[in-house]
Amino acid sequence: MIIIGEKINGSIPKTATAIAEKNETFIRNLAKKQSAARASYIDVCASVSPEKELETIKWLVDLVQAESEVPISLDSPNANIFKDAIKFCKKPGLINSVSMEGDKIDQVFPVIAETGWNCVALLCDNSGIPQSAAQRVLIFKEILKKAESHKIDPSRLFIDPVVEMLCTSEDGIATVTETIREVKKICPPVHITSGASNISYNLPMRKFINRAFIILCMSAGMDSAIIDPANEDMLALIFATEALLGKDEMCMEYIGAYRDGLFGEVKA
Amino acid sequence: MIIIGEKINGSIPKTATAIAEKNETFIRNLAKKQSAARASYIDVCASVSPEKELETIKWLVDLVQAESEVPISLDSPNANIFKDAIKFCKKPGLINSVSMEGDKIDQVFPVIAETGWNCVALLCDNSGIPQSAAQRVLIFKEILKKAESHKIDPSRLFIDPVVEMLCTSEDGIATVTETIREVKKICPPVHITSGASNISYNLPMRKFINRAFIILCMSAGMDSAIIDPANEDMLALIFATEALLGKDEMCMEYIGAYRDGLFGEVKA
Repeated sequence: MIIIGEKINGSIPKTATAIAEKNETFIRNLAKKQSAARASYIDVCASVSPEKELETIKWLVDLVQAESEVPISLDSPNANIFKDAIKFCKKPGLINSVSMEGDKIDQVFPVIAETGWNCVALLCDNSGIPQSAAQRVLIFKEILKKAESHKIDPSRLFIDPVVEMLCTSEDGIATVTETIREVKKICPPVHITSGASNISYNLPMRKFINRAFIILCMSAGMDSAIIDPANEDMLALIFATEALLGKDEMCMEYIGAYRDGLFGEVKA
Repeated sequence: MIIIGEKINGSIPKTATAIAEKNETFIRNLAKKQSAARASYIDVCASVSPEKELETIKWLVDLVQAESEVPISLDSPNANIFKDAIKFCKKPGLINSVSMEGDKIDQVFPVIAETGWNCVALLCDNSGIPQSAAQRVLIFKEILKKAESHKIDPSRLFIDPVVEMLCTSEDGIATVTETIREVKKICPPVHITSGASNISYNLPMRKFINRAFIILCMSAGMDSAIIDPANEDMLALIFATEALLGKDEMCMEYIGAYRDGLFGEVKA
């Protein structure tokens, strides 16, 4: 499972405070913890005003890279910022994100085309988030064409099926899981990723919705998630699910992660 | 979700001690807790020597029925005991279990044919547990024929796909989920049930394997589980999964169970 550590995000109140107060220790700790919990990428999202965003990203990226070898996931709603921000990174990481909205892809794909950078692509466009899986798959096909025209291999794409609130949905996550299955059928090399917080918005005990959501999406073919890897229960369920889905021979990864203390304290 | 409360089982050491010591309070408490946590059935398994089994079942059933209106799941490896044991029960419940092994079905189906009793049926026979899903489905078809010949409606059957240890499996739970999907395709009215403890045998942190297992089986079509309903995390994940699978309109069941305190203490 490709885990994108979500904790260094200015939309999380504690992280926002740390950013505002230039609290280096706080940011370094988040990087260290997520790195130790086996994040494949560490997401960096400034969530500040546009004129301060680039300098804030630089400050965050420098701190993360001082603590960890894990590649950066550059997270911004402003597609024009990535071309400068990737220069702060010691190694190729993940752009988070593009979509068929506006000219995002046309700004980002040329920048990463001849690099080792990967890219999250959301299945939405100028009309917003499509209602049906079929419409989302159409957007996927357009994204795939754009990637091909820039010679970006599909394996460098992390497709986000786009998740809305469960509490107002009529068919649960059927649209999301159908989208995942279709996208993987059309192009097996692409990765599928998602965050887990939108789904549980406005519901109590959100953690249970989030955990079951990730497991159900994994069974549909999702192989990446934007989560807190230091959340031991979530991480243990992800390792358990990989084993149950037959992707962990003899449960060696599950047992290894347990022995390394990733699921909580190991009793002597 | 049809939950079969598993706690009154003599193979659990604490319950075995309570049975040996005739500790009425202990058994009554297990009945009360599982009933409050919305068990659909309360399983009663004596796990004592054959000559003591019937009297032990009676003692247990009487205690459960003194505390709860929830129907009994009569659990025994001895098919010949059910004909006497159902007489102790105030209302029809669940026989747990028959299979195509020996003459179990031929002993039990005539006894429950003209009653309201339901029945768990395991997909194994005299050769043991079949390797493939296709072979398990063949056993299912034989069980279905036997049920038809006794005019037992398929909706009264709880099919158990039979779960083996994950740590020695080669393809995870693919055989189990394929069996579930096939059985539900052949005969949608049947229920599918399973326990969650065999799967995690010999692995550390078994609870995570058990929880992810139930969620993945639910996504394949399982609608019943033999678990501890007073386990708040497991119960919350089950309610969350039902909502995510689109079986809980506007998440009203999930929210209701939360408000009733079934997922842990509700903050004022």
